[in-house]
Amino acid sequence: MMFDQELYIQRRKGLISKFSSGMLLLLGNIENPINFEHNTYSFRQDSNFLYYIGIKSPKLAAIFDIDQGETILFGDEMTIDDIVWMGQQQTLKEKAFLSGIHQVYPFDLLGTYIQQRQKLKSVIHFLPPYQSHNKLLLQQVLHTPFTELEPSIPFIQAVVAQRSIKSIEEIAELEKAVNVAVDMHRLAIQMTKPGLHEFEISNAMQHFAQDQGMSYSYPPIVTKHGEILHNHMQYHRIHDGDLLLNDSGVETSLGYASDLTRTFPVGNRFTPLQEEMYAIVLHAFKTAEQALTAGITFKEIHLKACEALVEGLIQVGFMKGNAQDAVANHAHALFFQCGLGHMLGLDVHDMEDLGEQYVGYTKSEPKDTQTFGIKSLRLGRKLEAGFVLTVEPGIYIIPELTQLWQQKGLHIEFINYDLLTKHLDFGGIRIEDNYLIQEKGFQRLGKYLEREIHELYQLKDKS
Amino acid sequence: MMFDQELYIQRRKGLISKFSSGMLLLLGNIENPINFEHNTYSFRQDSNFLYYIGIKSPKLAAIFDIDQGETILFGDEMTIDDIVWMGQQQTLKEKAFLSGIHQVYPFDLLGTYIQQRQKLKSVIHFLPPYQSHNKLLLQQVLHTPFTELEPSIPFIQAVVAQRSIKSIEEIAELEKAVNVAVDMHRLAIQMTKPGLHEFEISNAMQHFAQDQGMSYSYPPIVTKHGEILHNHMQYHRIHDGDLLLNDSGVETSLGYASDLTRTFPVGNRFTPLQEEMYAIVLHAFKTAEQALTAGITFKEIHLKACEALVEGLIQVGFMKGNAQDAVANHAHALFFQCGLGHMLGLDVHDMEDLGEQYVGYTKSEPKDTQTFGIKSLRLGRKLEAGFVLTVEPGIYIIPELTQLWQQKGLHIEFINYDLLTKHLDFGGIRIEDNYLIQEKGFQRLGKYLEREIHELYQLKDKS
Repeated sequence: MMFDQELYIQRRKGLISKFSSGMLLLLGNIENPINFEHNTYSFRQDSNFLYYIGIKSPKLAAIFDIDQGETILFGDEMTIDDIVWMGQQQTLKEKAFLSGIHQVYPFDLLGTYIQQRQKLKSVIHFLPPYQSHNKLLLQQVLHTPFTELEPSIPFIQAVVAQRSIKSIEEIAELEKAVNVAVDMHRLAIQMTKPGLHEFEISNAMQHFAQDQGMSYSYPPIVTKHGEILHNHMQYHRIHDGDLLLNDSGVETSLGYASDLTRTFPVGNRFTPLQEEMYAIVLHAFKTAEQALTAGITFKEIHLKACEALVEGLIQVGFMKGNAQDAVANHAHALFFQCGLGHMLGLDVHDMEDLGEQYVGYTKSEPKDTQTFGIKSLRLGRKLEAGFVLTVEPGIYIIPELTQLWQQKGLHIEFINYDLLTKHLDFGGIRIEDNYLIQEKGFQRLGKYLEREIHELYQLKDKS
Repeated sequence: MMFDQELYIQRRKGLISKFSSGMLLLLGNIENPINFEHNTYSFRQDSNFLYYIGIKSPKLAAIFDIDQGETILFGDEMTIDDIVWMGQQQTLKEKAFLSGIHQVYPFDLLGTYIQQRQKLKSVIHFLPPYQSHNKLLLQQVLHTPFTELEPSIPFIQAVVAQRSIKSIEEIAELEKAVNVAVDMHRLAIQMTKPGLHEFEISNAMQHFAQDQGMSYSYPPIVTKHGEILHNHMQYHRIHDGDLLLNDSGVETSLGYASDLTRTFPVGNRFTPLQEEMYAIVLHAFKTAEQALTAGITFKEIHLKACEALVEGLIQVGFMKGNAQDAVANHAHALFFQCGLGHMLGLDVHDMEDLGEQYVGYTKSEPKDTQTFGIKSLRLGRKLEAGFVLTVEPGIYIIPELTQLWQQKGLHIEFINYDLLTKHLDFGGIRIEDNYLIQEKGFQRLGKYLEREIHELYQLKDKS
């Protein structure tokens, strides 16, 4: 479950070549306790560690020592007690060899090593820690309170530059992840029927993915309340007339993620209004898809999709006025509160641990962190060939938000509150696929998953 | 998904009555990041927090201020942004009310509150943190490096005293957890057949449990290599002639755990040696079960079970000499390296976060932390009515350990290495049920799960 040695060696060479001195410190993850130390969540290696080292074992760290020209893995071999409890496994030295690393030191030497090199004025670079365990570890090995730790921006930028451009091997993995997710989504569409609970669908999908040797790449959203953007409540019983929104993807054994969404009727057909609204989202989706290519900013595509949504909402009567003006004034954000998509790779929001401002934006095109709607767009920068990303427009009618805007009299020139307040229970619709950006145009990753209304109906009829 | 208010109020009263001054600080858990901050593991509330407060939301803390006679919950209400992303939910005030708590402060005031009370010489008691997040939080609110934090032994002891004795409501929950686990184990026995992979069985069990609204209470052990005590590798294909060891349990929505083990043939029947060995473990199991009652130490029962195992192993020829002497010399630990059982409740190893020496042992009967075998016995103390615990003897032939002992010439007067080394690939057998200790005797919790050899064969024949 690793790529070929050569790939890791090349990735490390590429990274190291950006630095003329110092040390780069990469921390792996640990097995995190659930309710006591020895009852742990399933282990997930840190994605940067996976990318440069590839070893999926807990409690490892690596130092790329530029000054010394050395790559050192810090970690411990199993003791006889470990073998009794957990079984004989590949030794750490063997695993290191598969990654092309020949120096392995005990984990406890990490701090000592750093301090000795620091005495010789070697600067240490590290990435932003997101797990508290690694905040504590950095505090210890760097003798600095964790509130004063300063992650290295050059290190972040170098990693983002490399990980943003997916290699052939990575694209093959991502397609594997999409293909299993496509089958999983078809299972969901076909098993969904009135009387089930939402959780029964997500449990069946998880079972399916796990039997393919994959796991969910994020907690799935399987809900009749698609208007709740990150809804993890799945206790509702679903009925004829409800929409079901299914946002779920899987992770391959090498750690690559897929992220797909379909929205479909619980019964055999959409209601007339659901069908109209679905057609609007699908049109916005295709508008965005067709615009994908290297050279354009994702923010432009996002705004194109917003305009397409507003045009449709004007036709249905929920909005009014000029679509371009409405988008320029952020009035669409009442229906589309979030962003059009995000980078995808070893993380479902790829490299989000390194900071959105470095991954999705550039210094010259910084992120708008204030304006409702656009502040939730994780990716705004100019696209490059090799980027992999999601496209996921949607329409969400959120009662609490609608009432708040109405009370404040927000955008009354663009929003038809009279009609809208008659449909506060509409719910939400989202469509999402995964794409590779090419020099000219794009490639949709993986197998085609039904998205046209008649295709969804056919799937339902077959079940 | 909470008990009646009155129960939490009574539990807190009982706890507070043990202290004449100071503050008791209880920290809830957070949503722990997997690979970046917003991709999180499924939330599990801390068990002590569940016990005294019962609210299953992240980022909460509670202070029982003895000096002021007040109980305060620290936590934040949802903002409109939270509602957009996660949906409207019960307010924190409403949840607090259900727990009988009427004072709710913003989470950020926790540190300030503690410092103000500390200035007035109020002593703060806290429990040992196991999640790194709470180590960092304690470091912040107590202005003490986490390496110097000193959990309160009186607080630990007071919590252990209460949580060790299960109430009627808790026993009902534990029986629910056992009953679903029994059905889950039957499913496993009936679906197991040559050609499957281990993970297919554990995936199907998880699916079954989740559809009942429960989750695994710990990462299940489903393996043909039962000799590996905490084996979480499930990639093997299983064949006729293999044993399958299934150690798995579930957790109810209130957080109570079950923990059952059965070992059965992958094909329709055990081999003659497997049958003989199974009978030995079953006999040891029944010997231990029959000894369960208030007043006896669990260590005594453990040693009785060890003797029963050795007597059987002598008959098969793997051991020799006098069984009592063998156990007194810890020679049995080559086959039974771990303990006979542990406390069970809101945690599968109940209260293990508070320290085995406080939960499973007493000052006058401290834990043996040196001797191989007995050092892994989590529970040694005198049993009391109301304790809930597991009984789980086993026989495990571990090639690496056997070779190590043989090389060292350990216990050659008790172990017949000649015969044993012909069966290094035997594997492992464990049988485990869950019990409530009574004034006189015991009550096995939940439905009966087949354990006799002919009962297992009947289940296999029916599938």
